[in-house]
Amino acid sequence: MFDKKNIQQAIDRLKQQFGDSLSTSPSVLEQHGHTTTRLPNQAPDAVIFVQNVYDVVNIMKVCNQLECPVIAFGTGSSLEGHVNAPFGGISIDMRKLDQVLAVNNEDLDVIVQPGITREALNMHLRDSGLFFPIDPGANASIGGMAATRASGTNAVRYGTMKDNILGMQVVMADGSLVRVGGRSRKSSAGYDLTRLFIGSEGTLGIITELTLRLHVVPEVISGGICSFPSIRAACDAVIMTVQMGIPLARIELLDPLQVRACNKYSNLDLPEEPLLLVEFHGSAETVKDDVVRFGEVCTEFTQSPFRWSTNTEKRNKLWKARHDAYWAALALLPGAVGSATDVCVPISRLAECVEATIADINQNGLTAPIVGHVGDGNFHVLPLTMPDDDEMQDKISAFSNRLIKRALSMGGTSTGEHGIGQGKRGYLREEMGTAVDLMAGIKASFDPKNILNPGKLFS
Amino acid sequence: MFDKKNIQQAIDRLKQQFGDSLSTSPSVLEQHGHTTTRLPNQAPDAVIFVQNVYDVVNIMKVCNQLECPVIAFGTGSSLEGHVNAPFGGISIDMRKLDQVLAVNNEDLDVIVQPGITREALNMHLRDSGLFFPIDPGANASIGGMAATRASGTNAVRYGTMKDNILGMQVVMADGSLVRVGGRSRKSSAGYDLTRLFIGSEGTLGIITELTLRLHVVPEVISGGICSFPSIRAACDAVIMTVQMGIPLARIELLDPLQVRACNKYSNLDLPEEPLLLVEFHGSAETVKDDVVRFGEVCTEFTQSPFRWSTNTEKRNKLWKARHDAYWAALALLPGAVGSATDVCVPISRLAECVEATIADINQNGLTAPIVGHVGDGNFHVLPLTMPDDDEMQDKISAFSNRLIKRALSMGGTSTGEHGIGQGKRGYLREEMGTAVDLMAGIKASFDPKNILNPGKLFS
Repeated sequence: MFDKKNIQQAIDRLKQQFGDSLSTSPSVLEQHGHTTTRLPNQAPDAVIFVQNVYDVVNIMKVCNQLECPVIAFGTGSSLEGHVNAPFGGISIDMRKLDQVLAVNNEDLDVIVQPGITREALNMHLRDSGLFFPIDPGANASIGGMAATRASGTNAVRYGTMKDNILGMQVVMADGSLVRVGGRSRKSSAGYDLTRLFIGSEGTLGIITELTLRLHVVPEVISGGICSFPSIRAACDAVIMTVQMGIPLARIELLDPLQVRACNKYSNLDLPEEPLLLVEFHGSAETVKDDVVRFGEVCTEFTQSPFRWSTNTEKRNKLWKARHDAYWAALALLPGAVGSATDVCVPISRLAECVEATIADINQNGLTAPIVGHVGDGNFHVLPLTMPDDDEMQDKISAFSNRLIKRALSMGGTSTGEHGIGQGKRGYLREEMGTAVDLMAGIKASFDPKNILNPGKLFS
Repeated sequence: MFDKKNIQQAIDRLKQQFGDSLSTSPSVLEQHGHTTTRLPNQAPDAVIFVQNVYDVVNIMKVCNQLECPVIAFGTGSSLEGHVNAPFGGISIDMRKLDQVLAVNNEDLDVIVQPGITREALNMHLRDSGLFFPIDPGANASIGGMAATRASGTNAVRYGTMKDNILGMQVVMADGSLVRVGGRSRKSSAGYDLTRLFIGSEGTLGIITELTLRLHVVPEVISGGICSFPSIRAACDAVIMTVQMGIPLARIELLDPLQVRACNKYSNLDLPEEPLLLVEFHGSAETVKDDVVRFGEVCTEFTQSPFRWSTNTEKRNKLWKARHDAYWAALALLPGAVGSATDVCVPISRLAECVEATIADINQNGLTAPIVGHVGDGNFHVLPLTMPDDDEMQDKISAFSNRLIKRALSMGGTSTGEHGIGQGKRGYLREEMGTAVDLMAGIKASFDPKNILNPGKLFS
């Protein structure tokens, strides 16, 4: 499909241009193949550390001419093999493109380069009274988050990456520079190319600049926890909360096993029952009202009290524990590796989907804690296995397959926030049907030589 | 470009199939050319009133084979000539596809056919405690609103059509049926085709079913008005409100001329100064807090009081007056016609843009009231002219051109919510640059014979 000689020729030519910024050292190559999943590492043939957009333009021009695969690399925290190089080629490391180019306070927007991480961006914004809300588990790069249409714990209030990008600059396969979207809050001018690039997983172009929506840091943040006798009771409480229009900022479900994991890992003493962890954002008055109303909802579904706090330290400890859920889960089985999943279903089917999944876990003797962004109907199961336990890995693959089929049968999606990458390619057509042919048509139009991140999504 | 003989052959063939549901009566044809703008009516050669999705499939199969243009028609309330037939062909009247197929209360979504109007949908939902918030001036069809990426007065809180459609069924140019998106709240599975079709103005496919997000009818709606000494003072109040994180549901600016028009038309006695009309949605407690805080903001920028009310009758009267602003404006000059504009700029540039525009209006002796969805930076100017006043029409065209250039120079867009259609084709490349070539590539891939609404957008 791709000619190794051509790839080598592209590397040789780019080496002249980039010198030491182009690396073929085995350790660098391996770092840029994917490392945080069960998928095998497939290293690129070279890595180029770019300094500016024109570096990207130059790389694309050479690679397009010589039909050399190109993979954009942010922090390498994606979970479905997005940065693997199954056909070799060049990985473009974007981490030095990490500048904030403009903060527009009055417009609540910011222009950034793609290599900046979400934490670095919020650090930069810390004195502005504004923040960027999307918070996937990892401290991912903004470019990578855009490319995978990422979200996180507060999507129920602030939306996902698709809702928080106003415009972009993109380098196309042939090296041409394109601007899509803009800075106005809304526009009806032409096709929505911004949202087409969001979630395109590096297969349509290389994002080199983004204009992001910012949000006002709430005057008051109040959070709390409540235990429930069953998953269904917890989910029903979420549904009623949403239907009452109580404005949730975050609402996370932990199953009893995940609670136990967090207790151990983060030194907490939460009851090992289904747990909802909630947060409200607003003024002192509005948050107080939200908390009272949510507490009333809880009394309908549990005898456990809703314990809330505006104490920042306590709240941060809880949310830190939630953000560490992945590590806490791994610590359940020292030395184990996890296979993250992220199905999402209509919220009315959530209880049924989670309950069936727990039954499946128990029936098959898996160790697999669950955390869910339940306001969106999205939940993660993390089945654990020792790296050398092939039998368990097979069991987990079969379990993941059943989990995705279960979500699809309920009108859900195979991936709420991680993306398709390599890991879920087998499900895209089952989920999207002939829409995949339309995607392939767009891909062929934008990247006729299929050099942009080949082997991902449907290609 | 299109062969009249082929078009006639398509009509003859479809006549056999559709009988009386296919009309070539001159009055029906004229109705289906565009009527609510300054653009000349360009009638199609036939209109087919479809009953179901398979009618649409059958039409597309015949028209694709014979290369006959096809234009989807909702209510005909679009403002940029979207439903004109510059190359003739067939208009598909979707108004009988007006069913609500499912209301999913727990999931806050609804599945509808495209011909239902926004008012009919909300009437259907009236006992559910849920509503669909997008409210363009006209009682447009949901399909048309999706096709033009419409919005309205409460986009600042609920977003635009792009934020409120989860999935669609679409008939493609070749008659194939495709589903895009789904029912889950979020998904990272593949390219975001849903948002690609939203705003595609009937050029990529015919939307035959939509899954919409619904919102909870707020427990309390409170609104109010406040006059300001200048446009800038009013805009500054909006910016400060947004920066304080006060959750506005609606915030509309009326310039003094529009206030005068509304006073006359709706029998009100508002001071003829720049006016903000605001609305808050929430619980009794939260709305009270929002109102107090907004009132405090106002005192920074005006000596006029912020007058608010939870009285439904009074509030409805005010918002009715706002929704009738278009008719009120026309009544300023009996017999006149208006040329609606809808630029949108980053909110930090809004005062400057509106002030420069008013100066332009005055300098050129135009009668042109202004209303703005100022939370989004979007505003409408409606220059009036008598239908036979060619000189004034030329002045207005030149004015509209300057207005769009002004908005673009401020990082804005030529169209915040009406779309490009025929009327703004000349500005699309100026605004979007080479991104238009990417759009054309998608169009060629989806509709290689260019039969879907030709002559609109960039084609």
